[in-house]
Amino acid sequence: MRAGADDQICRLRKTLVAANRILARLGVLDGYGHVSARHPEQPSAFVISRSLAPELVTEDDLLELDFAGHPLNGDSRPQYLETCIHSEIYAARPDVAGIVHSHALPVVAFSASDVSLRPIHHMSGFLGSGAPVFDSRTQFGDTDLLIRTSAHGAALARALAEASVVLMRGHGFVAAAPSLKLAVFRAVYTVTNAAAQATAVSLGGEVTFLSPKEASLADATNAGTVDKPWALWARHAGVDLA
Amino acid sequence: MRAGADDQICRLRKTLVAANRILARLGVLDGYGHVSARHPEQPSAFVISRSLAPELVTEDDLLELDFAGHPLNGDSRPQYLETCIHSEIYAARPDVAGIVHSHALPVVAFSASDVSLRPIHHMSGFLGSGAPVFDSRTQFGDTDLLIRTSAHGAALARALAEASVVLMRGHGFVAAAPSLKLAVFRAVYTVTNAAAQATAVSLGGEVTFLSPKEASLADATNAGTVDKPWALWARHAGVDLA
Amino acid sequence: MRAGADDQICRLRKTLVAANRILARLGVLDGYGHVSARHPEQPSAFVISRSLAPELVTEDDLLELDFAGHPLNGDSRPQYLETCIHSEIYAARPDVAGIVHSHALPVVAFSASDVSLRPIHHMSGFLGSGAPVFDSRTQFGDTDLLIRTSAHGAALARALAEASVVLMRGHGFVAAAPSLKLAVFRAVYTVTNAAAQATAVSLGGEVTFLSPKEASLADATNAGTVDKPWALWARHAGVDLA
Amino acid sequence: MRAGADDQICRLRKTLVAANRILARLGVLDGYGHVSARHPEQPSAFVISRSLAPELVTEDDLLELDFAGHPLNGDSRPQYLETCIHSEIYAARPDVAGIVHSHALPVVAFSASDVSLRPIHHMSGFLGSGAPVFDSRTQFGDTDLLIRTSAHGAALARALAEASVVLMRGHGFVAAAPSLKLAVFRAVYTVTNAAAQATAVSLGGEVTFLSPKEASLADATNAGTVDKPWALWARHAGVDLA
Repeated sequence: MRAGADDQICRLRKTLVAANRILARLGVLDGYGHVSARHPEQPSAFVISRSLAPELVTEDDLLELDFAGHPLNGDSRPQYLETCIHSEIYAARPDVAGIVHSHALPVVAFSASDVSLRPIHHMSGFLGSGAPVFDSRTQFGDTDLLIRTSAHGAALARALAEASVVLMRGHGFVAAAPSLKLAVFRAVYTVTNAAAQATAVSLGGEVTFLSPKEASLADATNAGTVDKPWALWARHAGVDLA
Repeated sequence: MRAGADDQICRLRKTLVAANRILARLGVLDGYGHVSARHPEQPSAFVISRSLAPELVTEDDLLELDFAGHPLNGDSRPQYLETCIHSEIYAARPDVAGIVHSHALPVVAFSASDVSLRPIHHMSGFLGSGAPVFDSRTQFGDTDLLIRTSAHGAALARALAEASVVLMRGHGFVAAAPSLKLAVFRAVYTVTNAAAQATAVSLGGEVTFLSPKEASLADATNAGTVDKPWALWARHAGVDLA
Repeated sequence: MRAGADDQICRLRKTLVAANRILARLGVLDGYGHVSARHPEQPSAFVISRSLAPELVTEDDLLELDFAGHPLNGDSRPQYLETCIHSEIYAARPDVAGIVHSHALPVVAFSASDVSLRPIHHMSGFLGSGAPVFDSRTQFGDTDLLIRTSAHGAALARALAEASVVLMRGHGFVAAAPSLKLAVFRAVYTVTNAAAQATAVSLGGEVTFLSPKEASLADATNAGTVDKPWALWARHAGVDLA
Repeated sequence: MRAGADDQICRLRKTLVAANRILARLGVLDGYGHVSARHPEQPSAFVISRSLAPELVTEDDLLELDFAGHPLNGDSRPQYLETCIHSEIYAARPDVAGIVHSHALPVVAFSASDVSLRPIHHMSGFLGSGAPVFDSRTQFGDTDLLIRTSAHGAALARALAEASVVLMRGHGFVAAAPSLKLAVFRAVYTVTNAAAQATAVSLGGEVTFLSPKEASLADATNAGTVDKPWALWARHAGVDLA
């Protein structure tokens, strides 16, 4: 492995710890949920914490897993029950390098409603590519709703298709992006959009959403600004960026 | 008493203090409400704080009471007014080892509404066994709504029946579980479910709840994961788990 | 003045500082609003901070005012613009010894709505005596909505009549009680009740409120328990109760 | 430059840093949004942070820009993308000396709804002059919704007209005032009003707003009291007022 590669995975691991703590601090993750990043050197592997509440994650807790869930280095500590969310989306979507899975309440509400989550705010332009709802019961019948197998994960990845966000009925959502930081950003603003849309609906009038082109232009703009909120979030989460 | 038994009650007392502080930290309990555990050595007794705001409870504040409310060791400090919630449910439900009584707002709203609280989220699969509403007025007429007597408590236990949660009209709710930690978990996610369901309803569309089998499968899964959020909650509450 | 009397005002002043900080900590007061207590030795006077955000109030900031707004001891520091809320209610209601005036949002919402605030929760049984809405425009026409004069204050006191809480249209509310601590308690649970009632209404079903007798019984019970949440609130507000 | 002038810009810079931190602390600004002040010595220039999350702003981060966006002193650090919000409103409105641009959720909800934001609370009497909605699509078609050019900014300023607040569809709002502190105050209470109005609407009854004259009288009163909440906000934000 080249020294540069070594640096890359080192930096990524620090960013992933920051992502865990930031998402916990912002209430996107609570005792459950997880965030991962595609391995910078091995595109068929990803980095994710062992089974642990995200706020508690340190570098020592990170596992490197291949898409069958095998640890690259034999680390056999208990994994999250739903690592297939990550492996199957990374497998299906070569453009994705960061994934967040969250149970945030405003999005759970949309996941169980037939009202669609739509981009009400330029910060969530990424929702312009849709926020489909995956219902595990359609294909798998009565389950505990977890994404426990490759088949579950692959079905979820098919529901996500080319979108950035997929809702999981009665469960939560997944946000995916070309970078870990952008996946965090999208998870944060998915929750924000759900809350703002719920309030707008409750006002009882007509609601105007972003047009598809507005959404895609806003998404492109925001993708270039992620370091600005990241600096703030890192400080709140007690993460040293230096 | 065997040394092992002694260890068991010692550990339980520490967990009960943690439960008090965790529930306060998460806003499930405020200045009122209480949490108890069945006595590990004496199944016809339970452990609960003397009358005190839960966040302030330390080990010195814990009372051990029989089902008539008599302290096992003559400790005559003032008790909560509603210890019969606990004694009567422990008496009626041998499977229950932990009980939380809370006034959390989203659940108070459901307690006063004829809209039923139903499992909208896999984290609250335990609601699949129902969330009946106990209305003290039906049987006892105009009261201050407190569960002050064995008769009140027994009526509440009958309303709970085989469910995990019973709502109390104009008052709050009780969550019960086979372990203290699971009772805390269920209290937390009862509140969460109420908030998510209220948001989902406000969207105006159709809402899909967990099927009975999904709910029971999810409940079984979650019961095995309680230590994960507990580790986080304990840290937030300043509780040392070591 | 007797030594006992001296002690009484000393204790009251400490409790009033605590009340200011507690109400700010709980979000009942923000940069505006105020809390007062009837003078324990001089029933035609009351104690209130000089014009200052409640959270910042210390003992040095307290004024003792007669019902004409004159300081008992010549202290000429600027007063709140609305001291007549306090003087006129103390004058009209000899049973009242503590008053809180708040702009808390859920209650502002009810103040501007023709939907009545009603006791949905046993903690707010005091609302069973009604929560009338005072609209300054009815009697005084277009004003800045402040209670600036004795005439305004007297009209507000007439609207309050024998109730514990009066809402002020487009402005906020006043909670009154036979003791300072109970006035704080009632202010806290007025806000709580408004939030729970708004959620219950949003569910779309029938809402059951406390019966008049339930409300009055619950109020009597709660009045005897105020020291329990007070101990917690004081700790949160950084107030030493010793 | 006179010594007095020097003092004036020094004080303003300190107040602007405080404004950034206060608005972040109150949740009016998050990682995005900005606040500016007209230059006290050069009325065709304004002071604003370089591109940075508001909570992180220190005096060293402040830029002084003319209305073409050129730094007065050659400081070429990256600017916010939307400085034209500020320059064009200062140019169009000589009475304005402070401007806040925010994405606060309750106001985003109104920005996307055809239900108008109206003054429900005397603290937001400034809304009596209207809260028009600027929709960038009307004039500029599909964009990323940012105010990137003088033309965008001038159109926004025309929509604002003589009001204190203009909503930006799918984006947020701008609050303007004759002083920096009052602009902060208005931004805070715009958010508050949106939240209270949304709750009032959700109750389902008739809502009474301030009359135009009540609104203007309340606005005049409040403008004289800004130092009271400012002292509190500054303490919360860790700003030294001495």
